[in-house]
Amino acid sequence: MFTQSRCDRCGSILTSSYGIANRITDSGQGIWRFREFLPPLTEGNLVSLGEGSTPSIETKRLHSLTGVKRIILKLENCNPTGSFKDRVAALGVSIAKELSSKGVFNASSGNAAAAVAAYSARAGLRCITLVRENASAHKVSQIKMFSPILIRVRDLFRTRKKLENVLSMMQRWLPNWYNHFLWAPINPLLVDSFKTIAYEIFLSSRNADFVFVPVAGGDLIFGLYKGFKDLAASGLIEKVPRLVAVQAKGAESTVRAIRGELRLDEELKRTRTVASALDVSFPSEHAVIAVKESGGFGISVTDREIMEARRILASKEGIFCEISSATVVAAIRKGKEKGLLSSEDTVCAVITGSGLKDVERIKISNIPLAKNEKELRSLALHAAG
Amino acid sequence: MFTQSRCDRCGSILTSSYGIANRITDSGQGIWRFREFLPPLTEGNLVSLGEGSTPSIETKRLHSLTGVKRIILKLENCNPTGSFKDRVAALGVSIAKELSSKGVFNASSGNAAAAVAAYSARAGLRCITLVRENASAHKVSQIKMFSPILIRVRDLFRTRKKLENVLSMMQRWLPNWYNHFLWAPINPLLVDSFKTIAYEIFLSSRNADFVFVPVAGGDLIFGLYKGFKDLAASGLIEKVPRLVAVQAKGAESTVRAIRGELRLDEELKRTRTVASALDVSFPSEHAVIAVKESGGFGISVTDREIMEARRILASKEGIFCEISSATVVAAIRKGKEKGLLSSEDTVCAVITGSGLKDVERIKISNIPLAKNEKELRSLALHAAG
Repeated sequence: MFTQSRCDRCGSILTSSYGIANRITDSGQGIWRFREFLPPLTEGNLVSLGEGSTPSIETKRLHSLTGVKRIILKLENCNPTGSFKDRVAALGVSIAKELSSKGVFNASSGNAAAAVAAYSARAGLRCITLVRENASAHKVSQIKMFSPILIRVRDLFRTRKKLENVLSMMQRWLPNWYNHFLWAPINPLLVDSFKTIAYEIFLSSRNADFVFVPVAGGDLIFGLYKGFKDLAASGLIEKVPRLVAVQAKGAESTVRAIRGELRLDEELKRTRTVASALDVSFPSEHAVIAVKESGGFGISVTDREIMEARRILASKEGIFCEISSATVVAAIRKGKEKGLLSSEDTVCAVITGSGLKDVERIKISNIPLAKNEKELRSLALHAAG
Repeated sequence: MFTQSRCDRCGSILTSSYGIANRITDSGQGIWRFREFLPPLTEGNLVSLGEGSTPSIETKRLHSLTGVKRIILKLENCNPTGSFKDRVAALGVSIAKELSSKGVFNASSGNAAAAVAAYSARAGLRCITLVRENASAHKVSQIKMFSPILIRVRDLFRTRKKLENVLSMMQRWLPNWYNHFLWAPINPLLVDSFKTIAYEIFLSSRNADFVFVPVAGGDLIFGLYKGFKDLAASGLIEKVPRLVAVQAKGAESTVRAIRGELRLDEELKRTRTVASALDVSFPSEHAVIAVKESGGFGISVTDREIMEARRILASKEGIFCEISSATVVAAIRKGKEKGLLSSEDTVCAVITGSGLKDVERIKISNIPLAKNEKELRSLALHAAG
């Protein structure tokens, strides 16, 4: 039950359901405080580093700057390895233990790779991480600390077909290893880990008209959608908030699929964006479902808008996010400008990862130097001006 | 009341007391859920980014490797800017608002600078950050994102006297600005923010015989000591755990002061360690008090032991900490070897900051490359061994 991904009869991606509980319970560590809404696993196999329970905070200035009533930010950068992927790694590595897997393999050069390597280390399981040939040395250095076995693979993410082919070969060669690739068409159960974000937004008493989510493979937005549906089905919220799929202009496959400009089996010929975690060529079927069924929309923002939003978020709210996360901030402003949001709307946005994951290096010599008391006084008084 | 630091009569460092409450309350955001144990501030002046409520997790392998019964790690890397300093910035910037300060100034090139800049941004207050002349470009780049005014100061941290002189000049030039330097002899109230760590360790039902804490200025260990004393005075715990001051061999001023080998007004002539956040030359009076009164000890570890402990923590437990945090892991092992801990002891250790703050850069070309299916198969099978 933990590894099948598609229906034997119709070929659709499977999804999970655990019945409807009357209330969200709140005991256990990390995502496991929501155990009854997650795949049923043996207690002893649950792996956690205390992920989740991240802050939900209201903005102090950003909502006025963008023209909406309220903005609530869910700070997933506060997870143990610095991104929302810790939730899925807690679930996936626990499933691997349940299956008595000899190890875990994965393909990613970013947040997912760090999370899966960390949780495998925590579980005492071996981990093979496939990364792209020209992966960022900074990102791989973070992953490497957890001591996975790293293999660079030429053209790993070039096309969806190539990637699927690599993963299925890996599974064939390593039949007793768990394929931890986070993508619903391969691992539909793993998206359930992201339902916990919806529960936590609810528990912190934050209701929203819209939830803005960065979209690559679409698992985060689909997991959130499932989580909000659980809450609605339990009668805890009146309706599922409208889900908004946010992408970068240079890689807007899902946004275009939502608009009907791209078929689900099509791919963009060329993608290019500073938001490396969102640099995918194919649309997400699940993201399209989440957006359409919830009455949301898709929106894309330029690289310039993303980088500006990242600086605004840090300097106006004190939150330093990774580049891909800043897309949601840029998208709220743009959505308001386009009339897709009103000034009465409360918007929730998921800040998916830490700014420490990609730091823009400055030159230390560009900072003014006070060599003596007189110079310091002059610089200080000028600064206080 | 918020700015006086020493007694008018005897010259001792002041400390705060809020009476004894019967129970730890648990409402409000960030550190403010413990409001009644913190300086009394107006509700509207409380600043928070959701700091605190960080995970307390039990190790799976580290305790066996070091020979103690249990190890509990308090993951302060999960704070919004990636370190425990977010707690003190939440308090300090709130005090600055209470005082209607025109801005905040600080001297730090590391975690404190990032935290104070972030919380000032959050509060809409201006921030001047003094950094050392040759500060790490990587660290300053993180700080810079929050748009403080940065000034490099020659010999900023050369001696305690030099630093105190710079800060007192700054206060004279900028009389309406808040001096946010975290060090009890200057700002005794700020250590109270770290009491919240002790409360959280208690609330997660983790009792410990020893608490291992990295020590530079000594505020963290003293705040923890005060927090545990509150808990003991409230009857919530039987006794205050023994506090252990951990330093690097190359900068062991407080450890030597605890042993009586260095007077409190003396300084080490030369310091040198990879743990840059712990590279201070003068002993901490407060750390000595916390250790002696709780029946703990001081211990120092070599740079080699620190770097090895950092890798062990990541590869055996999945926790990637900053270099200075790894000292506590090295110190537990060493404390056990020296007979200062027994195999029946439960040890808590504070992981003060995120490994993303200082990443050891690897060479991407050192990772094996699979150029085709055959090479991937060979590498995968070899990895799975």
